Amino acid sequence: MAKINENYLKLQAGYLFPEIGRRVNEFVAANPDKKVIKMGIGDVTQPLVPTVVKAFHEGVDEMAKAETFKGYGPEQGYAFLREVIAKNAYQNRGVNISADDIFISDGSKCDTGNIQEIFGNDNKIAICDPVYPVYADTTVMSGKTGSYDSGHYDGIIYMPCTSDNGFIPDLPSETPDLIFLCYPNNPTGTVASKEELKKWVDYARKNKSIILYDAAYEAFITEEGIPHSIYEIEGALDVAIEFRSFSKTAGFTGTRCAFTVIPEGLKAYDSEGNAHDVKPLWNRRQSTKFNGVSYPVQKAAAAVYSEEGQKEVAEEIAYYLENAKIMKESLIEAGYEVFGGVNAPYIWVKTKNGMSSWDFFDKVLNEANVVGTPGSGFGPAGEGYFRFSAFADRANTIEAMERIKNLK
Amino acid sequence: MAKINENYLKLQAGYLFPEIGRRVNEFVAANPDKKVIKMGIGDVTQPLVPTVVKAFHEGVDEMAKAETFKGYGPEQGYAFLREVIAKNAYQNRGVNISADDIFISDGSKCDTGNIQEIFGNDNKIAICDPVYPVYADTTVMSGKTGSYDSGHYDGIIYMPCTSDNGFIPDLPSETPDLIFLCYPNNPTGTVASKEELKKWVDYARKNKSIILYDAAYEAFITEEGIPHSIYEIEGALDVAIEFRSFSKTAGFTGTRCAFTVIPEGLKAYDSEGNAHDVKPLWNRRQSTKFNGVSYPVQKAAAAVYSEEGQKEVAEEIAYYLENAKIMKESLIEAGYEVFGGVNAPYIWVKTKNGMSSWDFFDKVLNEANVVGTPGSGFGPAGEGYFRFSAFADRANTIEAMERIKNLK
Repeated sequence: MAKINENYLKLQAGYLFPEIGRRVNEFVAANPDKKVIKMGIGDVTQPLVPTVVKAFHEGVDEMAKAETFKGYGPEQGYAFLREVIAKNAYQNRGVNISADDIFISDGSKCDTGNIQEIFGNDNKIAICDPVYPVYADTTVMSGKTGSYDSGHYDGIIYMPCTSDNGFIPDLPSETPDLIFLCYPNNPTGTVASKEELKKWVDYARKNKSIILYDAAYEAFITEEGIPHSIYEIEGALDVAIEFRSFSKTAGFTGTRCAFTVIPEGLKAYDSEGNAHDVKPLWNRRQSTKFNGVSYPVQKAAAAVYSEEGQKEVAEEIAYYLENAKIMKESLIEAGYEVFGGVNAPYIWVKTKNGMSSWDFFDKVLNEANVVGTPGSGFGPAGEGYFRFSAFADRANTIEAMERIKNLK
Repeated sequence: MAKINENYLKLQAGYLFPEIGRRVNEFVAANPDKKVIKMGIGDVTQPLVPTVVKAFHEGVDEMAKAETFKGYGPEQGYAFLREVIAKNAYQNRGVNISADDIFISDGSKCDTGNIQEIFGNDNKIAICDPVYPVYADTTVMSGKTGSYDSGHYDGIIYMPCTSDNGFIPDLPSETPDLIFLCYPNNPTGTVASKEELKKWVDYARKNKSIILYDAAYEAFITEEGIPHSIYEIEGALDVAIEFRSFSKTAGFTGTRCAFTVIPEGLKAYDSEGNAHDVKPLWNRRQSTKFNGVSYPVQKAAAAVYSEEGQKEVAEEIAYYLENAKIMKESLIEAGYEVFGGVNAPYIWVKTKNGMSSWDFFDKVLNEANVVGTPGSGFGPAGEGYFRFSAFADRANTIEAMERIKNLK
């Protein structure tokens, strides 16, 4: 008799974004004349930049001729892409990461979920609260947790992030084995300083823990001194895996390309305490369960690092950050307490008078016809907060903010 | 302390194809003047067909303009692709599969590995021997097996496929919960008749087992009456998940697109014996751990089903099948016992005088400078066999066969 993975039964109904989609569809069906502006899901709206498009087409053309056709590529990604990433994202910033440490994939969501497969189910996982739901959901699916209660799964170490601690978690009282951190943060839009990350790296080193560092929004950092990679922190190469993506950096949410960095020499342990290199485990996982990213997509991704490509994507990011600035100012003007939006495409808003996140969601949807994301959807500590993303186009951003300023 | 998934330590060194790569690289380095012809890995060599290339470019162009730009797509795949698949691959053959049953992915390798995640570790898995190594390796990684001994992992039910049973396994004595079947078969190139598959469907229905049916080579079926889908068998909709791919059908090994079919109403069970629909579990897995296939790739895949696209890919498949015919005839002429190659791009050859598969590999590599795949790499019952794939170009195919005919 075929038996299901019963851990799936612990998952709460409706992954956050499908639930938002359901409510929005319902509203649209009932109000076909209303123009709904979407600032919920963190999805980009601006097209691929010209240099990327050109390389993408060239990649397709290569697939059209036998002499240049590419069949199976390396599961780890093509050397041409791994090399430009190592150079531009790391070596040029003084970080000792080589092409061989970089694994190209089709998404950071996939990687942050799949990474747990190479670690045993006896690991204790720490995640921030609120946080991007995938970390907790994939932890549940893998069987590392008990049941769900009041927004938390038994067996996960939750680290509250609120305005009280500046959205940087305190070191937990129970020691975790794997620690998910995400900066610039989704959903709060906040960043961690070098000093704050150093605290975490030292903690991980002391406890032989591994930090799973999601830096998908790195390209949005505008302020000097904020680390773009956890590997800028001394000692991090021994204790951190970093996830990066082209999704937000270069508008690849529908094109699909990302990468995971596992430094040479990063160790995890077996039950007898023997150290094992982690990189070969991930290499084995990827070689066995993944077949590499589409060749033309990898060509397109590599073009992001060309001189022109860098200029063009920087303009696109500046566009979204200008949106964020407009939103932040408008929401402050409207009397809200606002976080993020300076080094991240997310604005994290405190609702007024303790209104719940979902009540605020319904109010904003029904009265302003704007879609945002309820903070409580990211965890109980997000209750009373609301996330707006800065990825709408400029005209819609301005219109949405006008409507919200006019909310009764 | 971060702990590894110790199941990975049970995996045997070197997934088959990396080991082949290693030996070939060593040979090439030592013999830079020799022209090596590769018939090992099942990788296509002919370019994407013109209709697919055109659609691929159009997809890229849509990504270049804000009005047509696509961000995150549905994790399950775009409706336009799911619909043409349902119609062309199933409904037109009288099989009741709807677009909603189809999940687009970036590869059948990924899907046949990932599918195990939605089933509990208390499932007993049956696989053929010899077989594509991914089924066993992902079973080991997931923790369903004991250690490795003489080519088999403890806890897997192996079903020998040899010339004695026509490469169709007998029903196993121990009852499995999940049964991997692959027809047209990789590596043996053989097919299963309706009667033979009916036996398996009835068996699965009787035992509430699920058949994981890998039909990646379906497009190579030339003989009338051979089922292209397991769903052509009465009762299969209740007990089978089918995997299909554009890799071999349309030369997508480097472009990446595949799909998995989970019929509405297919059930698996919890530990109390309650039935659960399997489709929502896979939907949840994909929504949480996957972000859909690149939009231009989905456009390209859909073009395979256009009238022109169908004609063009049929020509490409005919090209490979003509290779297979040449190979089969040459190898028979050279005195080998040969299987497959009629409804599949693989030729399964019995070595002469009981030579071991790897000895034959080294002989063919060193003396004929041709790369094939040792049958024992697919499992102990493959010992003494050797796989040639028909994906080389015509000139190389003819040359490789001449060289093998001249082997001493």
